[in-house]
Formats: sequence, structure tokens, C-alpha cells
Amino acid sequence: MISNLQKRDLAHVWHPCSQMKDYEEFPPIVIKTGKGIYLYDENGKQYIDAVSSWWVNLFGHANERISSALSQQAFQLEHVIFANFTHEPGILLAEKLAALTPEGLTKVFFADNGSSAIEVALKMSFQYHAQKNKPNKKRFLALTDAYHGETLGALSVGGVGLYNEVFQPLLLDTVRAQGPDCFRCPFSERPESCSTPCISFIEEKLKQHHEEISAIIIEPLIQAAAGMKMYPPAYLKNLKELCLKYDVHLIADEVAVGFGRTGTMFACEQAGITPDFMCLSKGLTGGYLPMSVVLTTDEVYQAFYDDYETMKAFLHSHSYTGNPLACRVALEVLRVFEDEQYIKVNQEKSAYMRELAFQTFSHLPYVGEYRQTGMVGAIELVKDKATKEPFPSKERVGYKIYQIALEKGLLLRPLGNILYFMPPYVITKEEIKTMVDLTNEAVQEYFSKAVVEN
Amino acid sequence: MISNLQKRDLAHVWHPCSQMKDYEEFPPIVIKTGKGIYLYDENGKQYIDAVSSWWVNLFGHANERISSALSQQAFQLEHVIFANFTHEPGILLAEKLAALTPEGLTKVFFADNGSSAIEVALKMSFQYHAQKNKPNKKRFLALTDAYHGETLGALSVGGVGLYNEVFQPLLLDTVRAQGPDCFRCPFSERPESCSTPCISFIEEKLKQHHEEISAIIIEPLIQAAAGMKMYPPAYLKNLKELCLKYDVHLIADEVAVGFGRTGTMFACEQAGITPDFMCLSKGLTGGYLPMSVVLTTDEVYQAFYDDYETMKAFLHSHSYTGNPLACRVALEVLRVFEDEQYIKVNQEKSAYMRELAFQTFSHLPYVGEYRQTGMVGAIELVKDKATKEPFPSKERVGYKIYQIALEKGLLLRPLGNILYFMPPYVITKEEIKTMVDLTNEAVQEYFSKAVVEN
Ligand SMILES: Cc1ncc(COP(=O)(O)O)c(C=O)c1O
Ligand SMILES: Cc1ncc(COP(=O)(O)O)c(C=O)c1O
Repeated sequence: MISNLQKRDLAHVWHPCSQMKDYEEFPPIVIKTGKGIYLYDENGKQYIDAVSSWWVNLFGHANERISSALSQQAFQLEHVIFANFTHEPGILLAEKLAALTPEGLTKVFFADNGSSAIEVALKMSFQYHAQKNKPNKKRFLALTDAYHGETLGALSVGGVGLYNEVFQPLLLDTVRAQGPDCFRCPFSERPESCSTPCISFIEEKLKQHHEEISAIIIEPLIQAAAGMKMYPPAYLKNLKELCLKYDVHLIADEVAVGFGRTGTMFACEQAGITPDFMCLSKGLTGGYLPMSVVLTTDEVYQAFYDDYETMKAFLHSHSYTGNPLACRVALEVLRVFEDEQYIKVNQEKSAYMRELAFQTFSHLPYVGEYRQTGMVGAIELVKDKATKEPFPSKERVGYKIYQIALEKGLLLRPLGNILYFMPPYVITKEEIKTMVDLTNEAVQEYFSKAVVEN
Repeated sequence: MISNLQKRDLAHVWHPCSQMKDYEEFPPIVIKTGKGIYLYDENGKQYIDAVSSWWVNLFGHANERISSALSQQAFQLEHVIFANFTHEPGILLAEKLAALTPEGLTKVFFADNGSSAIEVALKMSFQYHAQKNKPNKKRFLALTDAYHGETLGALSVGGVGLYNEVFQPLLLDTVRAQGPDCFRCPFSERPESCSTPCISFIEEKLKQHHEEISAIIIEPLIQAAAGMKMYPPAYLKNLKELCLKYDVHLIADEVAVGFGRTGTMFACEQAGITPDFMCLSKGLTGGYLPMSVVLTTDEVYQAFYDDYETMKAFLHSHSYTGNPLACRVALEVLRVFEDEQYIKVNQEKSAYMRELAFQTFSHLPYVGEYRQTGMVGAIELVKDKATKEPFPSKERVGYKIYQIALEKGLLLRPLGNILYFMPPYVITKEEIKTMVDLTNEAVQEYFSKAVVEN
């Protein structure tokens, strides 16, 4: 029952983030076309893309307006070296990003993916301090359960063992502080009224190490890859103060949460803070093309601005830096945002999703909680609702529900025991209902079988 | 005299590989359109893109055929998550790459840029050895003057001080061996008859460190960023033997030399070797979009292939891994290669370029040598032709010639004192002549002025 294309795929393609042996029983689904929130496979079967294809898509697959912009650019100027050369899509994009992001972020440095943007921010922060006569600031502080990408620098600040444990001998010696854990709060606070006592975990590390720390890196509001762990804006506000107090940069990794995901254009807005570096990717191109940017301040820029002979320049580049095709697409994405008022539109959609999903899932026996921030909703499955004891990862509960959901035409791709919704913004209320209902069916089906088996 | 767009660029764009202060006197050139080997700025001025926009372009700017393929794909499927999902352009591309690359390279892992591909290869090699009970193999051997990209892992194996010196405290402890230096050969060999005695520098390091070395990484035939340093295929052949002898992986970084640049589809072909990993990017998409691949063997693949619970999977991913737009473009690039027989076509063009450039430049007083491999030609400028003493980098000789050439409508972008040609393959003989002539004019003009000034 495996198709010719599937066979050819398995002969040569090594898929990301996959144990390829799993594909023996569960061969890769061959997608032929996409439209709006839907993907269609080689047999014409339809799937709701509830995870926006790894959180990148904003305005639907094969969006007419964005595809037209891309097509037009392709016949005009597909690419040009971005050192000493520039182009209108890049200029207009940088201008718009500087205007949209928190006040003070004025300079835009381009890279190709989220991981490279993190690398740029780490390197810039380090070189800044070296050029300010603080060469000892050569470590970074990051949180437990952080995820910042897979190149060795980005992986070094990540805190999810699954991704970086085996690579420890290759990684930087990161200062690790316990991050917020609102679902299993050690201080028994409630997010609504929380005074973020857990910020003390960071302050302790800063007290000890601030002289050797160049920057703190965080995922604002949602630690996404760790399982959509959400925490309140107050945490960010307090963190920014600590950074000022201890003379440490703040790197906001908004790769996953940027561009409206959390309800505001950027998550940092909700805390009213300006980080020293903001990393953006994924939604930047609306799910079309790999590109990323690092925004920073004049203060940082000036520390590199000097006569050539001083050798203070930031000599980081990628061949495709500032790619005009990706810039043109990103520019169109921002225009769609504006024209269609998506921040406002999403408020209504996310309110609807919150109520519906909360009612549907919260009371279920294996659901620890349903939580939501903006257009990101998460269902945390637990073995024991009272103690919040998680399912052992070996049981692969999420993975099995994922397979059932796919049968039903829903692409969920959970993170361990956490199912989540991160749909394209073009999703309608009816489609939200279908997504929630299908998820519910898949969950019910799994647990009724699992209970029978045990 | 600075245009509105230039002003807006400088307000927000931080360009790669640039001291931004240089832009005060030399503002970025705003490119509006491209066609074939030409770029056109906002005033309609035409430039020959003699460096294929950082070595990425193959078949000209805004190539009708490639742009059409991209456009078509954009309206069909712009992107889909590549874990458990796949698509025809990705499958066909992987299949073609496996067929075109040296025998034994069967598996294709996707990433987004050259640097990420290097990171993938380093991580795979390391994890392979860890899973084969050789956890001590956690260092990498690389050459002096190597360039492999800018993310911290890739930068760690790089050997060009300009890029990585300031970042030393963040880098891996790479084992460094002196690389080949045919222009200033310490053994006084000639490339034509060379028995590659300099391979002994590597063997020495291997003897000492092989138990802790996971892989050797090299740029086959041309150390490009170091200044188009060229060396003969015999070196690669001997290197491959050393790798087998000392149980060390060979990573061939063909990011710059792949896809016909050296006269064969891949540089490794000329040595008749199969590396354990081959990294490709740049020309992969014909200069359109960031994408990269790492090809490897069944042997490596199998070391990761096991039951999920063993946790042996290679958990590396980027959000845009296997991007269908980039895959579709890459596929079209390979079809153009085939249909138009570019490997053959280039033989004639490169023979013409070699003869013309050799005659034009070799005898000049400040030219140490003109060298060429396939479609890469390089002029090494020296202060003293007899002693080969280089110009001090502070004089910025290359940079100044670059500026003169731009005036004349030629984009050269030298590497230090090395001017080079790496034109799109669609260049005609007449255009090669123009390119060489304009370069000659720029060189003559610079030195006549420089001599007057001294
Ligand atoms: C918060 C965050 N940072 C960085 C990255 C890395 O981005 P990329 O996958 O494009 O390298 C991701 C990707 O999932 C992410 O979620
Ligand atoms: C040989 C080689 N490897 C790797 C890279 C890095 O590729 P990228 O710039 O796409 O990160 C380059 C780029 O110039 C290169 O020349």
C-alpha cells in the first residue's frame, strides 16, 4: 500500500527530527498541493494544517497575493550579493520591521533561518562586549526547557535534552537558570496574579556570574518546543530590569512567537520592553521561505561602527543574506497584516478558540490543563490529573494521537504529551470548531483503546 | 548625490561582511533588476556580475525557465512540514542528487544554508562515532585558510582569522593542519607534477590525534574564501586514503565548488573519491534561494536507524527544511544542466577564459600569478613579483580596484589582494572578453595612480 513516490522518498530522503525506522510503518505523506489551512496528499486526501507546518504559515498555503508577489519578483531580480549592494524589497522590509518592533530597535541584520539569527545575536553580543573592553563576557545565560535551534551555538543555549544531550561535548558552557513553569509552579502562583517569584532563579545566577555573562536569551511568553509552556508578561518586564541592573544583554528569540502569534505583533510588546536583540524568522515570510532577521539598537550598531582599520566590523554573512525573493514575500506578508487588520481579526478568533477548546478539553480525565496565548492553544496530557504526573515519554501518547488525527484529516504533530493548535490566521470559526472536534475525537479514541489495552 | 533609497537603506540595514562606516563614502548600490550576467541599478547603470553574487548564480539573473518553475510551485505548494511529510520536488531532487554525486552517497539531508549544512555534517559525524562506541572522537581536523561558514560550529573549523579571531573563546578546539599552498609551495613543487608532499602535515596531526578526531573537513580543489587557493586532485585522493587508514570521516564542503564550478559536476569527481559527507548549497538553487543538503552513505544512515526507544535518531531540523519552492528551483537547475549540457559547454568557455586571462594578466608587474580551475579564475596581486611578497592588507588594494571596476560597470569584489572571476555559466565569449578587459583597465588604472602617489 506504499506508493511509488513514498518508496522513492524512503530510498534517498533523510527526514528532519525523525527516527527513520518509524517510517517503515508510517511512511511519509506525499503532499501535492496546499490551499488556505488545507494540505492535499497524492490521493487527494485533505488535512487541516493545525500546526502551520512547524509554526511558519500565517495566511494559508499557496496564498494568491503572496505567491503573486513572489512570482513578480522572480522575473525582476531573484538575488544579488548584499554586501555593498541592496534592493528595494530589502530596504522597505527593514524600514517596516524597525517601525513595527519595540521602540529603539532600529538596525536590521539579515540571515537565513532561525538558528542563524540566534548565532548572529550571540556573536554580536559577545563582540560588542569585547569591543567595550569586557572580553570576560563570553558566556550566555539561558533557561531550562529553552529551544533556540540546532546549529551548535543555538543548540548550546537550548535546554531541551532531547535535542542537545548527545552533543554536549560540542557545546558552549551555558549558564542555565530554571525557567518559569506555570503548570507545575513551585511557588503555587496563578498566572493571573503571579508576581513571578521564579525570576529569582535568574537573579541568583546573575549575582554569581554577571561578569562573565554577555547575554540572556529567552523565548518571550511561550517556550514553544518544550511543549508550549506559557508564562505571563510580568516575567519579561522583571527580566529586562535584571538585565539593566547586571549589565547583560537581553536577546528575545521571537522566532516562534513573532508576527501576531501571541495576540500582539511581537510578544515583547505585552511587557512593554525593548530587548537588545530581537530574532525573527518563521512567520517573517508567512511560511514561504527561509529567512531571518536580528533587530538591534543604535547603541549596539555604534560599537561596531568605526574606521576599517580598527577591525571592529561584524563580519558575519551568508551567501543568500537579504535574498530579494524572501524580502519581497516578507514585505507582502506585512502588507496583508496591515490591510486585513489581522491583529484585530485574530482577537476574535482566538477568543472563540479559547472558549471552545477550554470547554471541550479541560474536564477530560487525561487533560492536565488547556492553556492558550493568542493564537497558540495547548492541551497538556497527564497520566494523573491530581498529581499532574506526566505520561512516560516511552508510551509516545502524543505520537499515537497524532497518527489517529492524521487518519481523520488533521495534522497536529504534538510535542511529547502536549497537543497544540497553532493554525494559520486565515482559519475560520467553523474550521476552528472542526479542528477542535477532530482533536477531541482522536483523544477520545486513543484513550478508550488505551484503557481497554491496560 | 545619495539617493532616497540609499538613505533609507543606511538608516536601517546592517549589511553583511561590511564595515558600515565604509558606506559613508561608498553607499550601497541599489539594484532594481537582473538579467543574465547583468545587474541594473536604480539609475539604469549596468554591471557584469563577475562573482555570480557570492558564487551562487549559475544560469543568469531572472532566468525565465527557473523563474517560471518557481512561480508555478508557489501557486501549488509553497511549503509543508518535512517531518513525516514529503513532496514531489523534494523526492525528485534527492533522487537526482544521489545519482549525480559520487557513488555511495545515497542519503540526502536538507538544511537552509551552507553553514547549516556544515553543522549537520559535523553533528552527524560526531553522533555516528558516539553511537559506534567511539565517544572520544569529538574533535575535527581542518586546514589553515579554510572557510566553512559563520555559525559557531562552521566558524570553528574555519581557518581564516579575519572571520573567527575575535570569536575564539566561543569556538571548538579544532585540530589545525597546514593546508596546501601551491602559489607559495614550501616544497617547491609545481601543481602539474606535484606528489602532494604537503599531505604530510595532515598525517602528522592524524598520527597524534586520530583517536579523538571524528572528521576532516576540506574545500575540495579550491579554498575559495581564502583567496581562490587552488590545489590538485591528487591531494584529495591521498587525503581519502589517510581518512580510511586513521578511521576518520571525510567531509567534502562543496558549497562553493559544487555544480560544475571546477569543470566537473562535483570537485571530488576529479580525484575519484567518495567522501563520507558532501555539503552542497549556493549553486544548488542556481542562485535563487537559500537551501543546502548533506549527502551521506548508507553506512552512516544505518548507524542512526533503529527503534525509536534507542534514541539514536538524528534530531536536527530547521523550520523550512525541504522547502518545496527551493526544491522545485533546484530541480529545474539540474534539468537545465542536463538539457543544455553545461559541463561540456563550460569546458570551451573556461579554456577561452584561461588563455585570455593568462595572456592579459600574467606578465603584469604586480601579478604574482593567474590561476584557474574550471570556471574560477584568480589573479593574485603581489607587491614584489620575485619574492611574492603580498601587499599589506591595510592598503586595501583589492578593495580600491573593486571600486574602480564598479565605476566601469564590473562587479568584481576581490578577496584581499586576489581578484577573481566566477561568472554565471551563461556568460558568452564576448562577455568574457569584456570582463577581462575591464578588469585589466581597472588594475592598470589603480597601479598607474598608486605609482604616481608613491
Ligand atoms: C524559538 C525558536 N528559535 C529558533 C528556532 C530555530 O529556527 P530554524 O528552525 O529556522 O533554524 C525555532 C524553530 O523551531 C524556534 O522555535
Ligand atoms: C566553502 C563554503 N562553505 C560554506 C559556506 C557557508 O555558506 P552560507 O554562506 O550559505 O552559510 C561558504 C560560503 O561562502 C563557502 O564558501
